[in-house]
Amino acid sequence: MAGQVSPEQILGLGLGFWGSKTLLSAIELGVFTELARAPADAAALTQRLGLHQRSARDFFDALVALGMLERNGSQYSNTPDTDVFLDRNKPSYIGGMLEMANARLYGYWGSLTEALKTGKPQNESKQGGDMFTALYADPNGLSGFLKAMTGISMGAARAIAERFPWQKYRTFIDVGCAEGAVPVTVAQAHRHLTGGGFDLPQVRPHFEAFVAAHGLSDRLRFHSGDFFKDALPQVDVIVMGHILHDWNLEEKQAILAKVYKALPKGGAVIAYDAIIDDDRRKNAFGLLMSLNMLIETTGGFDYTGADCTSWMRAAGFSETRVEHLLGPDSMVIGVK
Amino acid sequence: MAGQVSPEQILGLGLGFWGSKTLLSAIELGVFTELARAPADAAALTQRLGLHQRSARDFFDALVALGMLERNGSQYSNTPDTDVFLDRNKPSYIGGMLEMANARLYGYWGSLTEALKTGKPQNESKQGGDMFTALYADPNGLSGFLKAMTGISMGAARAIAERFPWQKYRTFIDVGCAEGAVPVTVAQAHRHLTGGGFDLPQVRPHFEAFVAAHGLSDRLRFHSGDFFKDALPQVDVIVMGHILHDWNLEEKQAILAKVYKALPKGGAVIAYDAIIDDDRRKNAFGLLMSLNMLIETTGGFDYTGADCTSWMRAAGFSETRVEHLLGPDSMVIGVK
Repeated sequence: MAGQVSPEQILGLGLGFWGSKTLLSAIELGVFTELARAPADAAALTQRLGLHQRSARDFFDALVALGMLERNGSQYSNTPDTDVFLDRNKPSYIGGMLEMANARLYGYWGSLTEALKTGKPQNESKQGGDMFTALYADPNGLSGFLKAMTGISMGAARAIAERFPWQKYRTFIDVGCAEGAVPVTVAQAHRHLTGGGFDLPQVRPHFEAFVAAHGLSDRLRFHSGDFFKDALPQVDVIVMGHILHDWNLEEKQAILAKVYKALPKGGAVIAYDAIIDDDRRKNAFGLLMSLNMLIETTGGFDYTGADCTSWMRAAGFSETRVEHLLGPDSMVIGVK
Repeated sequence: MAGQVSPEQILGLGLGFWGSKTLLSAIELGVFTELARAPADAAALTQRLGLHQRSARDFFDALVALGMLERNGSQYSNTPDTDVFLDRNKPSYIGGMLEMANARLYGYWGSLTEALKTGKPQNESKQGGDMFTALYADPNGLSGFLKAMTGISMGAARAIAERFPWQKYRTFIDVGCAEGAVPVTVAQAHRHLTGGGFDLPQVRPHFEAFVAAHGLSDRLRFHSGDFFKDALPQVDVIVMGHILHDWNLEEKQAILAKVYKALPKGGAVIAYDAIIDDDRRKNAFGLLMSLNMLIETTGGFDYTGADCTSWMRAAGFSETRVEHLLGPDSMVIGVK
């Protein structure tokens, strides 16, 4: 009866959490940071990481087979990718995001079935906590989170700097800017622009340090505020990355209305996220990110380009378009 | 600095548990069993499965994007693979294995870091329980587990029936036979053979029902016993699938010594598992299965073909070879 079908793809996906958790544990244990110092054999690496010898070689060799480590003779080393992105001592480290996934999301996703039955988030909020409050109250946690956001935003930031017609505009701001990866990248590429970032007050020192390190303090300023309570700065272009998907439909529309109000005629909004393809059958990452919003928020969801342009039109924007950036990310542009 | 490298592969693997858990929840919720009855639109499916409407469409469309469902117009249906393997009402159902992964392993793998640091299992045994005892004490749990084993063993069973020189032998037994997928498949293909299965006494009714359903009760018998305590039946060929990897080195060697003793001169053992490639850099599934043995057992581990043939030689087997079966599975053959 099974004919030509085979259970391999099903078993591979269903047990996919094995490889995923193996990488997350490797990041938690500092495997890549240790190997960025120098290649090492299994015995030395086991000892330096404080591992038990029982499964250490299986662990390292699984990382080789998963394409996350290399092995030459008996010496393990990072791949070019993991050396750039998973060494804690490099500014390009994106492990903070995956450390968070390991410490929080892996467990919370264990309650996905309950989330689907109830429509309710499954994170700290189940015990009356709040993710953003917890994150923003802990200066170390916040620093790690903001650096992680920088790491995962750099590709999109470069694409936005290249592909948007910045020559038509003079001022811009990134709402929910974190350290300011997008403002810095855009300002580096376009010397005529001035602008900055808008975020909660706790983010200020992190933004200012990052901007100063790139020698852009004269052109990029931090504006503190809450985008539901406070007015947005008046600039030609407003960028919002991984912001709209956090909120329910009414909140998304309120944010776009506020953005519309802050822009001059001819001004533009750039919203970027893991935008789902309009036919909702290709961008698995965007659809899964939307389920992550179920786990993490009370009403957030990811959306298609068609969804977002219709909301922008309803808010008053006269011209809209969707452009792919990199990987699962696209930007939706609205012109007032 | 990031040059041509990109964090996409790292993020895809690190967040791979999202897609994995989405499939596991779909199996738990009976999505594929429901759609095997008839295709349905999102509203009907949401209602029949008892889902909250908030994220139901994202959930179904994520399954489309992951290749686990099809969607024509507004109607969702199973793919050929998921219809055969994930409909609970078909005998080819392998969801039992993934139901177990969802209910037990997903959570236990959350403690992988602790397992790697301590070398200790992270399952029921942490609270003084025992997986096999719990499983074998619950008749419903046991039935589901044995059916799941049948589902995931069928491909390997067919390959073993085709590729081993059965014409040279007259009798065989499958040690740790579960329902008897391998004995039934081999006996169907080779009418001159008689034999059976060896497993714990609780397995008898499941084996006998499965064998009777295939009209093979006259040629296949059940032998109850514990392969550490009891002698093995004397037959020409002994098969052991997904058995050796459960045990530590000393236990593996003791099992092979007992098998050697039970066989006549010229007799053969066939051990099959997700055998790791000798260079330990290709079969990621086999290496991760070995980490699963860390999570599940006190000393088990998966092994390469070279490992296994060296143990067989040490046990006295004069001729050994490794042959690939299907997917991650290979068989190691030893001739006395």
